[in-house]
This record gives sequence, structure tokens and C-alpha cells, in this order.
Amino acid sequence: MAKIKVGVLGATGAVGQQYISLLENHPWFEVSYVAASPSSAGKKYKDAVKGRWLINKDIPKNVADLVVEDANVVEKALGQCNFVFSALEMDKQAIMSLEEKYASLDIPVVSNASAHRHTEDVPMLIPEINPNHIDIIPIQRKRRGWKKGFIVVKPNCSLQSYLTPIYALIKNGYDISEVILTTMQAVSGAGYPGVASLDIIDNIIPFISGEEEKSEIEPLKILGEIKDNKFVYYDKIKISAHCNRVPVIDGHMACVSIKFRSKKPAKEEILNIWQNFKSEPQKLNLPFAPEKPIIYINEDNRPQPRKDRMLDKGMAVAVGRLRECKVFDYRFVGLSHNTIRGAAGGGILNAELLKAKGYL
Amino acid sequence: MAKIKVGVLGATGAVGQQYISLLENHPWFEVSYVAASPSSAGKKYKDAVKGRWLINKDIPKNVADLVVEDANVVEKALGQCNFVFSALEMDKQAIMSLEEKYASLDIPVVSNASAHRHTEDVPMLIPEINPNHIDIIPIQRKRRGWKKGFIVVKPNCSLQSYLTPIYALIKNGYDISEVILTTMQAVSGAGYPGVASLDIIDNIIPFISGEEEKSEIEPLKILGEIKDNKFVYYDKIKISAHCNRVPVIDGHMACVSIKFRSKKPAKEEILNIWQNFKSEPQKLNLPFAPEKPIIYINEDNRPQPRKDRMLDKGMAVAVGRLRECKVFDYRFVGLSHNTIRGAAGGGILNAELLKAKGYL
Amino acid sequence: MAKIKVGVLGATGAVGQQYISLLENHPWFEVSYVAASPSSAGKKYKDAVKGRWLINKDIPKNVADLVVEDANVVEKALGQCNFVFSALEMDKQAIMSLEEKYASLDIPVVSNASAHRHTEDVPMLIPEINPNHIDIIPIQRKRRGWKKGFIVVKPNCSLQSYLTPIYALIKNGYDISEVILTTMQAVSGAGYPGVASLDIIDNIIPFISGEEEKSEIEPLKILGEIKDNKFVYYDKIKISAHCNRVPVIDGHMACVSIKFRSKKPAKEEILNIWQNFKSEPQKLNLPFAPEKPIIYINEDNRPQPRKDRMLDKGMAVAVGRLRECKVFDYRFVGLSHNTIRGAAGGGILNAELLKAKGYL
Amino acid sequence: MAKIKVGVLGATGAVGQQYISLLENHPWFEVSYVAASPSSAGKKYKDAVKGRWLINKDIPKNVADLVVEDANVVEKALGQCNFVFSALEMDKQAIMSLEEKYASLDIPVVSNASAHRHTEDVPMLIPEINPNHIDIIPIQRKRRGWKKGFIVVKPNCSLQSYLTPIYALIKNGYDISEVILTTMQAVSGAGYPGVASLDIIDNIIPFISGEEEKSEIEPLKILGEIKDNKFVYYDKIKISAHCNRVPVIDGHMACVSIKFRSKKPAKEEILNIWQNFKSEPQKLNLPFAPEKPIIYINEDNRPQPRKDRMLDKGMAVAVGRLRECKVFDYRFVGLSHNTIRGAAGGGILNAELLKAKGYL
Repeated sequence: MAKIKVGVLGATGAVGQQYISLLENHPWFEVSYVAASPSSAGKKYKDAVKGRWLINKDIPKNVADLVVEDANVVEKALGQCNFVFSALEMDKQAIMSLEEKYASLDIPVVSNASAHRHTEDVPMLIPEINPNHIDIIPIQRKRRGWKKGFIVVKPNCSLQSYLTPIYALIKNGYDISEVILTTMQAVSGAGYPGVASLDIIDNIIPFISGEEEKSEIEPLKILGEIKDNKFVYYDKIKISAHCNRVPVIDGHMACVSIKFRSKKPAKEEILNIWQNFKSEPQKLNLPFAPEKPIIYINEDNRPQPRKDRMLDKGMAVAVGRLRECKVFDYRFVGLSHNTIRGAAGGGILNAELLKAKGYL
Repeated sequence: MAKIKVGVLGATGAVGQQYISLLENHPWFEVSYVAASPSSAGKKYKDAVKGRWLINKDIPKNVADLVVEDANVVEKALGQCNFVFSALEMDKQAIMSLEEKYASLDIPVVSNASAHRHTEDVPMLIPEINPNHIDIIPIQRKRRGWKKGFIVVKPNCSLQSYLTPIYALIKNGYDISEVILTTMQAVSGAGYPGVASLDIIDNIIPFISGEEEKSEIEPLKILGEIKDNKFVYYDKIKISAHCNRVPVIDGHMACVSIKFRSKKPAKEEILNIWQNFKSEPQKLNLPFAPEKPIIYINEDNRPQPRKDRMLDKGMAVAVGRLRECKVFDYRFVGLSHNTIRGAAGGGILNAELLKAKGYL
Repeated sequence: MAKIKVGVLGATGAVGQQYISLLENHPWFEVSYVAASPSSAGKKYKDAVKGRWLINKDIPKNVADLVVEDANVVEKALGQCNFVFSALEMDKQAIMSLEEKYASLDIPVVSNASAHRHTEDVPMLIPEINPNHIDIIPIQRKRRGWKKGFIVVKPNCSLQSYLTPIYALIKNGYDISEVILTTMQAVSGAGYPGVASLDIIDNIIPFISGEEEKSEIEPLKILGEIKDNKFVYYDKIKISAHCNRVPVIDGHMACVSIKFRSKKPAKEEILNIWQNFKSEPQKLNLPFAPEKPIIYINEDNRPQPRKDRMLDKGMAVAVGRLRECKVFDYRFVGLSHNTIRGAAGGGILNAELLKAKGYL
Repeated sequence: MAKIKVGVLGATGAVGQQYISLLENHPWFEVSYVAASPSSAGKKYKDAVKGRWLINKDIPKNVADLVVEDANVVEKALGQCNFVFSALEMDKQAIMSLEEKYASLDIPVVSNASAHRHTEDVPMLIPEINPNHIDIIPIQRKRRGWKKGFIVVKPNCSLQSYLTPIYALIKNGYDISEVILTTMQAVSGAGYPGVASLDIIDNIIPFISGEEEKSEIEPLKILGEIKDNKFVYYDKIKISAHCNRVPVIDGHMACVSIKFRSKKPAKEEILNIWQNFKSEPQKLNLPFAPEKPIIYINEDNRPQPRKDRMLDKGMAVAVGRLRECKVFDYRFVGLSHNTIRGAAGGGILNAELLKAKGYL
């Protein structure tokens, strides 16, 4: 089977690099097109990222010599790739319209950017939670007059560590009404150069601009449903998030307290649900799907970012410390690799789902 | 005025060293006696801590040449000091009985150890919150047949960052019914050698043995009252604590969500209460009392451990980010220096209160 | 005595902030004028540094409300200050000419910038080593037609940790012919935001642009002499420097191997020289002068940046581990606080020397 | 081909764990026997390391359930394994005699311990440098009356980053007479718990007990030759090493200055030698042999521990920054993974060489 040709927009940035690295030897996709800001346009990819290649592996050989194009000149992509991953770093309005232009030219956009996350006909996907949200694509196309193009997005990296464990419980009939959580997020989440070392060595920063809002609101769309051709947000859960930056390279962790609406499962029941949780990506056997989306670790002092972030290629959520809560019902700790599951790896899994479902 | 002679038990450990350093040039107290484990006994203090002096200042000259005594041989302290700070590191039962022996010999014990924290006639003090709990001392003495000796303790370092701000609100008539919090605690809280660097560089450990229980239960005694000659715990608040170890040298931080029982103050009212909060140590003008027990910082991204832990000599609680909570009523971030306010500095403030009130 | 009015150019940058903080309550100097880039001009100082004040103490009250002027508009400084500290961050050529303009307006410039370090009539001062180099000031003034203005500079922060110990030996008649050293430099040396946390957590960067050259060449001017109205560089020593960036907040450390030309002192003799070394700043009792410029620490594993960088207010050089070298004659470890002794504190000491000698 | 059965002595320690993890799925060797201190004896391996398994991968399944034996009871190993890796952590004398006991029972010992490094008939191997030193094994056996048993050791982890690049030049006819180097060594080199976080966060320790001596002397044996049935040390090179501990998890780095005896190669020649350097492990195509023992990185600011330590499975030496030296001839930076190449991986490569040469 010939591989599907893929473009990466924002290919020289931190997330763009991660895409290019993770897609090396991908069984279905092959990077054939890289685009970035005008200042990189015209350079070979390897020259454009010289001195700021952040990945601890070499630039894949098939990409190193690709000539970077200007991501703003949408027409350049025509015929060069079947769809694009968008890791654009521009202002929100610019990204919105640029992603729409690609889609209008029959180039589907699988995006990491936050611009379209709350657009009413754009699905925000975690394939283990809301794979059926891609059913809005025909509606999106029709409304916008696009034939083959469409836009899907992924949510913020911060919520990957707690939303899947929460969803698994809801799906099994245990409604959760209230969640209070605190995240401890890695510096790689801020991109490059991102967090200054003077700000974070021997320190914690108890604030990440916009992060708490995303952590609280995005889950509601993901847990929502399509109704009258648009997304209706889930309104049965309230989430409060404290977001902190910590001196960790990769891996976002969350300390989570949950309250059930009425029925409260036994601890063993929760563990059972998590350990057996599988969803569409596992059924479809998607290449980037973790074998088990949720891996529960029994040791008292786990999960830990450095030790557990790479579980199942960085695509699983590591969970531990499930115990009763003095105020709510239960507490637990979740961990997810923010630049793999929470960024490029998550985007690739979205594309794999779309391919398996015939949209790519 | 001649200074009061003071002994330090467990003088060679991390907290003992902090006592000795902070008491240098104290206006009221003077270290005249140092005791530790048998292995240190007989050595000059400077030799006993050689190669493991942890403080970034020299050993005070008047202590460097003191000969370390065996803390187990209680009689040695007779006539050498008027009272002792206990920073003993032994098993709980041994500390309990040893502290009682000192007290029985008319040597009051101002302790950092957790052994007597829940003894029914021993006050656990935060001088800004429950200074009146020292009123139990006559009862304690009477019951135990001690003339001048007594035992007071201080609570765990983890709760200093959130309990004073919470108490200030309760004291002003705003009852708080539920608290969910997550701490991010410095490695110095684990003593020395404490946390292995292999465990904490580029990492977080979401577990500290016994810490969550202390963080949840100790506040209830501190907020409690004396009734029928013993402490009755406060039962109107429920606290849930997630405790994490982070790669920070000093300074415990907490992300706190609070729910008021009925009356919910406006944000401005809370800020007003905190900024004007003063208590007994401030009124008595105790040497180690911070001018303002709670310092509210307006910047979005504060407090931060490295930048704010030394506010007012490390004795103030730094608070920031007061904002509404999606689930409870409000959220904020608190920070307290764990080895100063949370350990030796807190113990010294306890002794100052006791001195001012005539118990020492 | 009325204090001398002082201006700070580049007042909003990392070094400028350090000047303003260290000059609080200075017995001789008072900050009366702050200038920075046009983007800060017109704002109150406290607003200009809002969100990027890097010092762990509050902005001095007398400076917080000063209005920041545009450093390029030299005339603004007239009448506002008696001399300026230059912590300008611009390209080299721009700094050179701007500093000259201030001097030409009778405003002496005590600079941290590297621009004039190798100008033939500008002294590069470490007051303990070459205080007599200020004798070139009358020549500088005459040649340039300046009446009261002049320019002096300080050397790079990296060499403070090894040059004073080396000079003390040379001054005592022990010529050193070869030096090979490796520095481990703190992230604060790169300014703010400076080194990205993604580059330095769990990592070392074995390269700092331009730093090795400065570390090798600047000492030669400092050890040189005035001849024919200009500086002649010392040519009897060869220095090789490897410079590394390490995950340390403050404090540059150097591992140094030295070879004597002919006469090789005994170890005791070297220790004796270092421990007794005093120079002009100590004789003049300058406010920022360390009591002992070189503090030798006997413990095997010292000096260490976090533990020893603040020795004598951050102005002393901490030295340790003097021992024989298998290849050269001796080896030792030196440490100096890079933002105090190596930057603003060093500049202040320069100004104090100039004041004591009648140039300010 | 049936795999060779292998025992690991000191199997529960940091290096022992690394052996067990690296040997998972080894094409030639299979762990069949694990031994440790009496306190672990009798437990399943997974229970013996519970709570202190340091590797970020699961315990290999075939080892998890092996029962740990007491390493002191040598006879237990008989029939259980064909040879042992020794990662014993005991006092030197105890290790010496214990390793000899295994050898005397026809169980060859491939050791990481330092005990026998300077025993005159025991080879200290870096397979790329002195593979022929195994020729002493028949002599060793004969002298000691062992039939099949023997002892080989590997050198200290600190010298792997500079000795191979130096050897490559010597081998090509460029004699090096003097080397001055500074190491920056990772905390994992100190084992577990090893370096306390309170000692190393925001800090450097300029001392590692015994490390400088090892770094200076062990290379002389490795570069030496067998003469009169014992090793004669190379005496044509003098090495001076400064050894520092830095806050890095894995990867020892060295800044190296070298002086050639007479003939000084051009820079291009050195690069050429390094890039083409191959030796016995590469010729024999040993499973753990890096394809290129020396990987030169052209970027100015490389190698870096976090980014380059895993080059070629952690078995290659990363080298960079070759440039002229102001005092000696050249300078460069070397990096080697201390727990893989410098410990268990290096031991495995030794065993592979011995197997390929018929000794196992």
C-alpha cells in the first residue's frame, strides 16, 4: 500500500518537529510537505531548524532535505500532500482563516492549534472518548461548501491526564458531578524557548496563561454530543483546575478529586473499569493507539513524570493513587506525555482514526 | 537582660541545625546546650556536623565549640538550659517518652516532633491562630505532676501555607466547610539526606508518607478548643490534601479550593481580611513574628517558592491568585518556608509566645 | 554627607535591576536617574519592570516611582546624576558611542558592557588587582577632550572566580606561565530570559558564545600596565578556558590547573598568600569590598555554588581543593557570584574606588 | 543456538538492575541466576527490588520471578549459569575474594567492581582499545590454578568519555603526552540513593571521592601491555582530572585539553581519525557494539548529556567542539552514558568479546 502523503504546517516549531520525528517510518503516512513562516521558506528543512532541533533523535532523512514552503501560501500545498497536520503558531484569527483556506482547497486539516477548538461544527477529538464526533464532518463540509476538505482539532495537552480516566467511569454509568484538580505541567508544554530557566530552576510557577480555562471548558465539548448539526456541551460536570508549571522536561501530571452524582462505585470497580477500558482506537488497532489507554500503577508513589511518561510509546495515561477523598468521593493522580499524547502523537492518532473511517 | 539559656535536642539534624542558625543573636534566647544521638556525644558541635552542615551560613561561634551531649541522658541538661527545643529524630514512642522525661525534670519542651501532636493535653501551636491553647499548660502540669516542665508542639510544615489564610476568614465570621488542596513540597522537608536526586531531578513524586493525613487532621486540633481539660477537635471543616514532592530546595506551596458554609464573602472582603490580619505575635511584638502574617501578592504568577519563600525572614505566608472556583467558592495559592516558618522558626515563635506569657 | 546622585543605563535589564537593588541604602550613592530603551521610556520604573523584576526583594521605594528616560537621549541625564552605571544591552558599536556621549557631557561612565573592554585608554578594573589602572583617566580625558567625564569598564563575569587567586600568587613573586581551566557557569549569566529551561534541565551546554575568548584575553589586559599612554597586555601567561552552562541559578565556578614559570611555592605558602591577601579596596575600607577577597574553604567538597556564592555579600571569591596536579603544578576550584561580584556588585566597587580616589 | 546462561551478582543494586534490563532479549545471553546480599536472599527478584526499581522499563518477565540467592554462597551458582556479571557493592577486600571464589569454581567473572582493576593479571577492558588484553586469561588461569574460571574487569565510568578519542589518535601514530580534563558527572554514577537532592539542585559538587585518581591511573593500564605475564602500565601520557558532580540524571561529560608529544595532526586529520575509527567489537559485529565508537557532532554547542547520551543505544562516545587550545594543542568535549557504556552496557560488551574469542 502506498503511503498517504502528509504535510506539516508550522513544521519548524516544537510541535511541528515532534510530528516530523514521530511520523518517521509511520506505516500509513509519509511527510512529503513542510511549511512554516516566511522566514524559513526556501530553506531546506534541516537548515531551517539548525541549532533549534529539539528532538533527541536525528531529523528523519526523508524530511531533512525537503524545502520549506511558506504556510501562508496555501496553493503551494496543492498536489503535494493529501492532508496536513497544523502546528501553526500565529495569532488565533490568522490560524482560523488559514486552516479554513487549506480545507477549502480540499486539503483536510488535523490541527493542534486552539483556534477552532470551540467552532461549533469542528470536532475536538480524543479518539478513545469521542470518536463519533467525526460524524459532524459531512455537516461541516456541506455548510462550508467544502468537498473533501475539513478541519478537526485536538484539545489542550493539560487535560489528557485526567479526562480519559474520568470518561471511562462516566461511560460505565458512574456520573461524575464535580472535579477539582491541580496540574503540574512540564516546561516542554510552553514550546521553545518557552519557560526561562531563571524562572523555573528551584521553583514552581502557579500560573499558565489561559490554561485553567482550557482545562475546565474543553472537556465539556469532548463529552458533549452533536445536536442540530452542531456540538452541544456536556453540562453535567463542573471542573475546577489549578495549573502550575514545574521543572520537569516532559509529562503533565494532575492530582484529581472527583465526586459522583449519585451512584458511587467501589474502589475495586473503578480499578476494574480503568484496567479494562478500551475504545475505538484499540478496536481498530490504530498504529499509534496504546494497547491500554489507561495504565494503573499500584506503587504508592507513582505515576511519576520521568519514570512513566513514556508508557506505551508516550500514548497511554498513567494513573495511580486511587483512594478515598475526605471531601469528595475519590482522589487519584494522572499523568500523560504532553508532547506525544498531548500534542503530535494525539494528532497522529486523530488522523489514523479519520483514515480508518474513510475520511482521509 | 540576661538571655534565657536554651538547649537543642537533635541538634545535629537538619532541623536542629536550623534552630542553631536562627537563634544566633536572638534577643531573648541563647543556645547553651546541644544534645544528639550517642554517636555524636562527646564531640564538639562543629566536629559532629562536619561535612553535613546544611546551612549557607557559618556555624554560630558560641555553639561551634559546645560539646554535644547524649540526648537520651536527660539529667545532663539539668542546670545547663532553661528549656529545650526538641528536633529529635527517633521513633515516635521514644520521642514521646524522652520529651516527657525532660518535662518531668522541670525542663519545658518546645517540640518540632510529631510524637505528641495528638496528645490530648499538649497544645499544637501556630501562634497567630491558637495562642490561647497554651492555657492548657497548667492542666497538663497538674495532671502529670510536673512543676515547671511542660510540652508544646508545632504542627507539620505542610499546613502552614494554607491554614493561616483559612483561619483568618473563619475568625472574621466566614465559616469554611470544605477544602480541597494540593501541596507541592520542597525537598528540604524530607531532612538530610532525604530525597535522592535520582528520584526528583526532572520529576515529581506524588506521595509523601503520612503527609496527607497530617495535612488533613492537624488543622482540626489547631482550630479546636479546650474543653473538660483536653482538646476537642474542630468538626466544622473537611479537608482533603494531595501531597507532592517537587524539585525545589525550600518552600511548600499549596493550591487551595475553599467552600464557605453559608455566607460567602466578596473577593475584596477576603483580600481586606488577609491584608489586615494580625494576631497575638504581632500585638506582643515577638522578635520572630512577621509584621504581616499573610502577604498577598498581586502578580498573576505568584507566589513562587524561590522568589517569595524568604518574605519577612521566611516567617510570613505568601498568598496569591485569589479567584472564583468553578466548583467551590474560591481558589488561592499559598506558600510558606518549610524549614523556617514550618520548622525551627515556627518553634522559636512558639517559645517567644510562651516567654511573653510567662511560661518560660 | 549628601549622597552622590547616580544614574543607571539599561536599568530595566537583569544587570540594571541588580544595580538598583544593590544600591538601596548604599552609604555613598543614591539612584536618582534610570534610563532604558525607548519602549520603557516614560513609564514609572515599577511599571517598566512589571512582570519581569528578577530580584527576590522588592523594588527600592525611592526608585519604584522614578520615570524611566530613553537612554539614547543623553542630554536627559544632565543635572540628574553625577555619574552613570552602564548596563546597556545593545549592539557593541551603539554602546561604544553612547557611552562616549555620556562621558563627553561630563558624566562619567562605570560600565558593565563589553564594548570598551579593549579600548586602549579605557581601564578594565578588578579593584583588588589593578586599582592603579585608573591612572589612565587623565590621559583618556585629555586625548578625548573630556573635562570631567571618563569611561571605566569591568571584565566578564567568568574570570572573577580564578583571576584574583592567580593574581595573588603572581603579586607574591610566583610567576604563572600556563593556566588551563573549565568553567561551570550559572544561567543568570545569560540575562533574562536567557537560557531556555528546555535546554538546561537535566543537561549541560558545553558552549557559551564568546565566553572562552573573553576568559582568556581579558585577564591579560587586567594584569597589564600603562605604557605610552595606553594599556600594554601582560604576555607572560597563557590561558585556555572551556566554558559550560550548568543548571545553577547563580555562581560561576572554575576548575583551574596552573603551572609556575620557575619558582613553585609549597602548598602551605599558597594557602598563606590567599588567606592574607588584601588590596586597595580593603585598605580604603570601601563599602562593597569583601573583608577578605579570597576565602579558602577547607572541606574537600567545596566551594559549591548554592552554598558559597553569597560569602561576604557575594563579593568574595570562594576557593578550595588546592592540590597537586599530575600535569601542571597545582589545581584548585574557584567560585564567584556572577551577578553580584561578576556584574553589578563589581561595578559598584569600581565606582567606590573611583570615588575614594577623587574621580567621582 | 541456545543462549548462554548468565548470573548477575549484586543484582538488586543500581548497576545490577541495569544489567538485567539491558540483557532482556539479548541474542546470546540469558539471565538465569540472580544473587545479592543476604537480606534479599530468598525473595523473588521483583519483590527484592520493590520500591527501588530504578529503570524506566518493566522488570523483564523472565527475571521477575527468579529467586534471589545469597551472593556470598558461591556454590549456589554452580550449574545455574555459565558465567556471572559482578555488580557487587561491598568493601573492596570482600569483593576481591568473592570474585576469586566464583572463578575458582569455573565460573568466569565479568566485573564492574573496582576491586581487581589493578590486579596484575586481571585485564581491565574497553573492547575498542585493548581487546588483546584478554590474552592474559590463560596466564591468569595457570597462575591461579583455575581451569575455566577467570576474572576480567571494566574501568571506571568517568573515563569512557575521553579515553577512546585519545586512544584513536595514539593508535594512528599521534602520541599524546599531556592531558588536562574536567568531568561533569551525572548523579546516577553515585548509585542509589546516592547524591542527596539537597546537595545538587541549583548546585555543583566539585569533588567525588576517589574519582580523580581512577580517571588518571586506570587509562595507563588500559593503554599498557602484557609483559612478563603481567600488565605494564603505559608511561608516556600524564593525565590530570578534575571531577565534578552535576544535576544531570545520566551522562558523564569531559572538557579535555591535549598536548601531542611531537607530531601534531591537523584538525581535519583528527576528525578523520575519529570518524573512521573502528575496532574489534565492530569487526566482530558484537551485538552491543556501537556502529561507530566515536560520533563527532558538528554543532557548536554539543554534545549535551540529555540530548546525546543515548547515541547508538548509549554505547557510543559523543564528541564535539574540537578546536585549538591556547596552552596545549587541542581541546574537545566528550560524553558517554555512564550507566550504559560506563557500566552494564560496557560489561556486556566485554562478555560479548570474550564469547566471540572463545573464552565463554
